[in-house]
Amino acid sequence: MSYYQAPLDDVRFLLFDLFRIQEHYPALTGQSEFSQELADSILTEMGRFASGVLQPVNRSGDEEGCQYHPDSRSVTAPPSYRDAFRQFVDNGWPALTAPTAFGGQGLPYILGVVFDELCAATNTSLSMYFGLTHGAIIALSEHASDDLRQRYLPPLISGQWTGTMCLTEPQCGTDLGMIKTKAVPAENGRYRLNGNKIWITGGEHDLAENIIHLVLAKLPDAPAGTKGISLFLVPKVLDDGRRNGIYCTGLEHKMGINGSATCFMSLEDAEGYLIGEPHQGLRYMFSMMNSARLMVGVQGLGLGEAAYQTAVKFARERIQGRSLAGVQSPDLAADSILVHPDVRRMLLSQKALLQGGRALACWVGINLDISHYHPDPQQREQAHDLVELLTPIVKAFLTDQGYRVCDLAMQTLGGSGYTRDWGIEQLLRDCRISRIYEGTNGIQALDFVGRKLPLHGGRGARALLQSLREMAGTCDDENVRKTLQHGLGVLNEALMWLTINGMQDREQAGAAATPVLNLFGTVILGVLLARSAQVSGDSARQQVRDFYFAEHLSQVDAQLAVIKAGKQHLMALPAAAF
Amino acid sequence: MSYYQAPLDDVRFLLFDLFRIQEHYPALTGQSEFSQELADSILTEMGRFASGVLQPVNRSGDEEGCQYHPDSRSVTAPPSYRDAFRQFVDNGWPALTAPTAFGGQGLPYILGVVFDELCAATNTSLSMYFGLTHGAIIALSEHASDDLRQRYLPPLISGQWTGTMCLTEPQCGTDLGMIKTKAVPAENGRYRLNGNKIWITGGEHDLAENIIHLVLAKLPDAPAGTKGISLFLVPKVLDDGRRNGIYCTGLEHKMGINGSATCFMSLEDAEGYLIGEPHQGLRYMFSMMNSARLMVGVQGLGLGEAAYQTAVKFARERIQGRSLAGVQSPDLAADSILVHPDVRRMLLSQKALLQGGRALACWVGINLDISHYHPDPQQREQAHDLVELLTPIVKAFLTDQGYRVCDLAMQTLGGSGYTRDWGIEQLLRDCRISRIYEGTNGIQALDFVGRKLPLHGGRGARALLQSLREMAGTCDDENVRKTLQHGLGVLNEALMWLTINGMQDREQAGAAATPVLNLFGTVILGVLLARSAQVSGDSARQQVRDFYFAEHLSQVDAQLAVIKAGKQHLMALPAAAF
Repeated sequence: MSYYQAPLDDVRFLLFDLFRIQEHYPALTGQSEFSQELADSILTEMGRFASGVLQPVNRSGDEEGCQYHPDSRSVTAPPSYRDAFRQFVDNGWPALTAPTAFGGQGLPYILGVVFDELCAATNTSLSMYFGLTHGAIIALSEHASDDLRQRYLPPLISGQWTGTMCLTEPQCGTDLGMIKTKAVPAENGRYRLNGNKIWITGGEHDLAENIIHLVLAKLPDAPAGTKGISLFLVPKVLDDGRRNGIYCTGLEHKMGINGSATCFMSLEDAEGYLIGEPHQGLRYMFSMMNSARLMVGVQGLGLGEAAYQTAVKFARERIQGRSLAGVQSPDLAADSILVHPDVRRMLLSQKALLQGGRALACWVGINLDISHYHPDPQQREQAHDLVELLTPIVKAFLTDQGYRVCDLAMQTLGGSGYTRDWGIEQLLRDCRISRIYEGTNGIQALDFVGRKLPLHGGRGARALLQSLREMAGTCDDENVRKTLQHGLGVLNEALMWLTINGMQDREQAGAAATPVLNLFGTVILGVLLARSAQVSGDSARQQVRDFYFAEHLSQVDAQLAVIKAGKQHLMALPAAAF
Repeated sequence: MSYYQAPLDDVRFLLFDLFRIQEHYPALTGQSEFSQELADSILTEMGRFASGVLQPVNRSGDEEGCQYHPDSRSVTAPPSYRDAFRQFVDNGWPALTAPTAFGGQGLPYILGVVFDELCAATNTSLSMYFGLTHGAIIALSEHASDDLRQRYLPPLISGQWTGTMCLTEPQCGTDLGMIKTKAVPAENGRYRLNGNKIWITGGEHDLAENIIHLVLAKLPDAPAGTKGISLFLVPKVLDDGRRNGIYCTGLEHKMGINGSATCFMSLEDAEGYLIGEPHQGLRYMFSMMNSARLMVGVQGLGLGEAAYQTAVKFARERIQGRSLAGVQSPDLAADSILVHPDVRRMLLSQKALLQGGRALACWVGINLDISHYHPDPQQREQAHDLVELLTPIVKAFLTDQGYRVCDLAMQTLGGSGYTRDWGIEQLLRDCRISRIYEGTNGIQALDFVGRKLPLHGGRGARALLQSLREMAGTCDDENVRKTLQHGLGVLNEALMWLTINGMQDREQAGAAATPVLNLFGTVILGVLLARSAQVSGDSARQQVRDFYFAEHLSQVDAQLAVIKAGKQHLMALPAAAF
């Protein structure tokens, strides 16, 4: 089994010491009752729920998996999930950050970010049923008619029903312009949909009474490509109790997240409602995708944290060999493996990446709140810029690094990590998908470089760099400031290279995309770790910062060299020679 | 399913063009009949066997797994393995490189290295039953009495029986000095053994008539620690047909290699024979471990190759989106994803790491032959030095990079890589153990830095650097020579730092171990890729070299920075603060 305690000390430090939300959130959210005490008690409850309810059925869910029944075209979720799922709903967690007008609690998004991390750490598969529902809630809140919102939001927010995002088809995932699912107008302003969807998370299961599918499809008069996609609401069970023509035709067999039902779906004259305007579906879908991308980034963080805690526990308890500096525990048959520099390197990488990653996730979560709630439109806009810019970094960098953390944790345990006993191998398998779904990390990098950086003439990027410079400037230690300034200088240089070369030749931007995103991630985490060390005055945080500087931030020049090498070495090899 | 064709073009290039074994092997091995034609036909047979016999039962073996039967304390291997196992034996593959005196074919070790790669690529789990047997054959050949060799080698070499290495116990893996298994002298010069072993590959199964266990245990008068370990031969079935007291008490449940039986073993008054002298067991075990470590390194290569070929096939066929440089395939609905720089980066990393890694593995295989067969003792010694030095690099670097290749291959496929359809997720799961077993890669790094580099006053290291310099010097392109010289200069600097700091403070050597090993691996592959490009004159090999230089070799200065940062940033954090 894996060992996990919600990392609430670090969360509290970030929320109350580093970002001091207790001071500005009452005014920001207009909730005068918001206080550190309130937030604190919610955090405590989250930790209790994650460890007490979600984690105990994490392994059983992996082992039981989901079962497909061809005769009824139905899916049974892991039986051990049922009670935990019910408690998830009964405790009101799906409503946490949802709008109060439809039964939500309307609490700040930052609490949702923390909750997502804890859920991912303790049961990613079960959480996905609600994660996708959350995306559907956002899309409906922002784009659906009043009538649809009144009818569908309350049961989704309460968790009585769950939601899905039906995007991918066998012939298209990244390139949604190739969608073939068709929608034709029918009686009463409704539509009839026909087509096939794949990889639909929670597409069919027995945990909720109804499933509300948000489906991308093309109207008969649709323009070609992505400009001709519309978004439809397709309930599994219709208002009058009839079973709608949307069926699961099979389940994917996957490396991990076995408790999450990944469905092939068939739309067979399914009744649906158009959401918003025709042909605007992709735009609407993006508002739910952004939320989903943040959630997935945070999954990397949560799974990494669970793996790290297990690795630390193992390293403390495992005695084997002696310290290279001489016997440390003469009363034991051997020293703990924590004495070895190489074991410490693995654990320090894990710790630094997690602390820095969590600071980044919380920073984005707070800006999400500002972008929604701040009374000043300029403040909202600035925060929105930052969220837009950082969303692909959270998705790609935190999942790449979260997976790396899981991998390092397994290596720390050696053979005990490869066998099932300590639970790490499940965390690794469950984490691997986070780098792929909601847009592969390569797609995130293209989004970052091609769309987010140039947005509003680079306004967000300039503001981000300014924020980072300010944080770096607050560090007392001159060497720390210098190191950060160097990192920020490298970022600037990369941006200059990209501006000059990427504008003339989009393939140059494509070649630079992934290393540029990684460079941003590396430097941002460095600044946040240094700022954390400064604010806390804690020697452990300073040591983690120093480690990160020596082993991670020290790689930025080499990352820049790859960017500046351009596309030539990537494009030269003829396709036939691979 | 996964796609695989034995990479015999690359193997033939390495063997016949780069290393030109056809010219010196007849004299080297004393086998005048050895020729390119002979080697070539054996390679063709290997490819046919791997693709035609091993691969078809790779996935079924993963799905069937091994079954333990508590009543009989017996294990059933995957039923679909039976026929492939029989063909493995009937075709004489276990005898390939084994000594002719006991029924082996006595063919050069380099052919064994190639065969190991092909077996790992197509069925790692099944191959492990023979891989461990091969280790047992080596240990018995080198250290057992004539009597034991006559009785046990022929059926092991024929594959009629299989062998194991029983080292690990619950309380010790890396630190074998803590072994508790006891051996006491009994009648007729035999011994009685009692104790528990874990993680015993092929410890029990139904594929062979008998299993010959090589067991580390302590005699009653044994000195403490690693100097008190003896090696015993413990057959499952004794000569007179009695079942010996060595039983499987359970199976491990693992992330991968599910077709390979990983056993808990219990020795209950088991009869055994002492191999060689008392208390010399660890030294004997090392001769089989070195062979096993090379094999495991090559597993990383083979699994990576299978994953890469699948990723290339997928990338060619998957059409999605358009090239950033404009439409490339106007007659299709989209371009192949092979047009994207980021997809090409992933595939080029795979290709370069595999080609370079295979060159390294073959270089070591040829030196293994020279170290055994060369008439000149000085040549044998030099080759032996190189094999000793490069073994931990092959084990650690090729498995780390082979796993990275599998991971990049999965990312290339996106969701199709995470689901079972294309077989990549099994390759990734099967590959993960290679970085752990036969000594974790961290242990390999300590072996490299602590034992291998200082061996004979650094004689091997000097000879290695000299060889690399010579190869680099043969490259016509001045920029290529300069880049390699820079890389070799960085290697030298790392060695100097290590000599100065590691001698005074062993923890400094421990801190540097992993980055030093990785630095060596990175530079050696760079030299071998450049040399291959030079010898072949092939533009594709030049493009692969250029890619490797731009994205991998360009990282050496940053690697050196980590080494020179020393141990301080690793050792500062108190144990309680992790």
